Amino acid sequence: MAEDKKVTPISALGEFGLIDRLTSGFKSVQPSTLKGVGDDAAVIDSLGKKTVVSTDLLVEGIHFDLVYTPLKHLGYKSVVVNLSDIYAMNAEPQQITVSLALSSRFTIEALDELYAGIKLACQHYKVDLVGGDTTSSLSGLVISVTAIGTANAEDLVYRNGAKEGNLICVTGDLGAAYLGLQILEREKRIYLEHPDLQPELEDADYLIGRQLKPEARRDAIAYFKEMEVKPTAMMDLSDGLSSDIMHICTQSGVGCQILEGEVPLAEETYNMALKFNLDPITCALNGGEDYELLFTIEPEDETKLTGDQTFSVIGQITKKEEGYILVTKSNNKHPLKAQGWNHFKG
Amino acid sequence: MAEDKKVTPISALGEFGLIDRLTSGFKSVQPSTLKGVGDDAAVIDSLGKKTVVSTDLLVEGIHFDLVYTPLKHLGYKSVVVNLSDIYAMNAEPQQITVSLALSSRFTIEALDELYAGIKLACQHYKVDLVGGDTTSSLSGLVISVTAIGTANAEDLVYRNGAKEGNLICVTGDLGAAYLGLQILEREKRIYLEHPDLQPELEDADYLIGRQLKPEARRDAIAYFKEMEVKPTAMMDLSDGLSSDIMHICTQSGVGCQILEGEVPLAEETYNMALKFNLDPITCALNGGEDYELLFTIEPEDETKLTGDQTFSVIGQITKKEEGYILVTKSNNKHPLKAQGWNHFKG
Repeated sequence: MAEDKKVTPISALGEFGLIDRLTSGFKSVQPSTLKGVGDDAAVIDSLGKKTVVSTDLLVEGIHFDLVYTPLKHLGYKSVVVNLSDIYAMNAEPQQITVSLALSSRFTIEALDELYAGIKLACQHYKVDLVGGDTTSSLSGLVISVTAIGTANAEDLVYRNGAKEGNLICVTGDLGAAYLGLQILEREKRIYLEHPDLQPELEDADYLIGRQLKPEARRDAIAYFKEMEVKPTAMMDLSDGLSSDIMHICTQSGVGCQILEGEVPLAEETYNMALKFNLDPITCALNGGEDYELLFTIEPEDETKLTGDQTFSVIGQITKKEEGYILVTKSNNKHPLKAQGWNHFKG
Repeated sequence: MAEDKKVTPISALGEFGLIDRLTSGFKSVQPSTLKGVGDDAAVIDSLGKKTVVSTDLLVEGIHFDLVYTPLKHLGYKSVVVNLSDIYAMNAEPQQITVSLALSSRFTIEALDELYAGIKLACQHYKVDLVGGDTTSSLSGLVISVTAIGTANAEDLVYRNGAKEGNLICVTGDLGAAYLGLQILEREKRIYLEHPDLQPELEDADYLIGRQLKPEARRDAIAYFKEMEVKPTAMMDLSDGLSSDIMHICTQSGVGCQILEGEVPLAEETYNMALKFNLDPITCALNGGEDYELLFTIEPEDETKLTGDQTFSVIGQITKKEEGYILVTKSNNKHPLKAQGWNHFKG
């Protein structure tokens, strides 16, 4: 969309001109969207279902580094991480609002790129952009996305429904996004010290892609519906498996055993972890940002979940008194440690 | 809530401990709130009505200055400005989400103050806090609030319904919040130059209150319902009357005449404008942040709107070709100029 070399300051358009430019290419496709951008508020018809709302704030320098994050990818990811929360309720996202605070160093062409990514996500996941706020900041970019979805009351899956004997499952594989981030950070350091060196990104496409352009597991939600399985508890993996399973356990009043040998790792993740002198399983347990779904099911539902979908049974729910346990490949039992991202301890 | 001298770094609690501390005092009161804070998303029952969603992003240094803004007031105002958008749709706010990005200079006690203000607004307007996100920033405080409300489809009032011959009305009085800001900015400058001088805030309570602790016009919405009047168009006054009436006119495809002599000004606003060598009417037209309601009604509805409520008829809707006109007290006609806040031209 943006021409390569054109650079236009945001002040050339003004706030309302800017909003018009950024949002005019978005067409609503959801029947539930009655009024989108342009009034005091958006209007949504929940069509007899329950409304589900989730919100995230992404801050430059904390959640993303523009040195290695293309703005289009950033726009895409900002939407996807919110949709992931809606899917994690076993619900269908329908609308989003996007608010931006940006400093004067951002040009209109840069914002066009960001919005191209937002638009791509909207199209891919069939959600409508229905509102937002655009303002300036003294430094850096802040993106706030709110996602709105719907579900039948009986389909909703909360974090508090896990029961003793339930199987603990995850979609996809874990740890890749974390290693993608390690590669990008390494290349940034090298670039800053030796700007002439070419980046060493061999065999890293998968890992970097998982970091820069994650997808939300819409397919898993559709699959549950098709197979007529309702998880007993579910959440999306954003902080890391160790930290996130504890949320389910705390809210459900149960304990858990995670089988180290069953935690799914991609081959690329395993190999790259060793290159970085990291324990692959630690990356999978604590890496974060995988946006896979962590869910628990009744044991008898396991056989219903067959077919093309990949998911792994990685442990089971136990009594609360048994605590949170990691069972190693050599069958030793250790307390599971939550080392999820803590932005306040950085 | 916070003890005067106690200072605790946020890292002492961690992200989840912090969220627990800040949100545990909030009790949901709306029947439509099925699930609040604590899961991937909140769940709302719109109870057969349409859902209305609005969002705002407030940035330190752009929208507020912590030198003269008490955090409790800031929390209150952050909520109120969003609720104002919901009322401006002739809808009832029911839930909010609050996301924060904050630097390490903020203590837990400071956040307690901010949340005390948020809680006060929730209690006063009977809305439930149902979600959010708390993260760090490299500098400054960013607050993102999303408000969710409901309305019967037939009650919703948009910006695009104004028709030729409609009367243009506003609630309350205009320009006070702008002058409140001028006083606070003046006192800040004086304080920075002469820290020993006492602030000169005589007779400024009303103006400063309008800036630091505005209210949303819930009462006007209730009054419309009681009097069985449905405005043809409505929005809340956040950028300033001149700028905001143009939004209604553009979206409705009409023009307007604003009668300078009818624009409501409080005595305090008038007097303080003169002290600052400002034209009082300019303050009322372009000041912004009044959070009064700007609405248009059928002329025959004027007689229905009687009683205790104060609102002013300040002009009428004309044909599009007649443009946007200010009729001065001496009956001269000038083009209305939108000089609303443009954060990108500061």
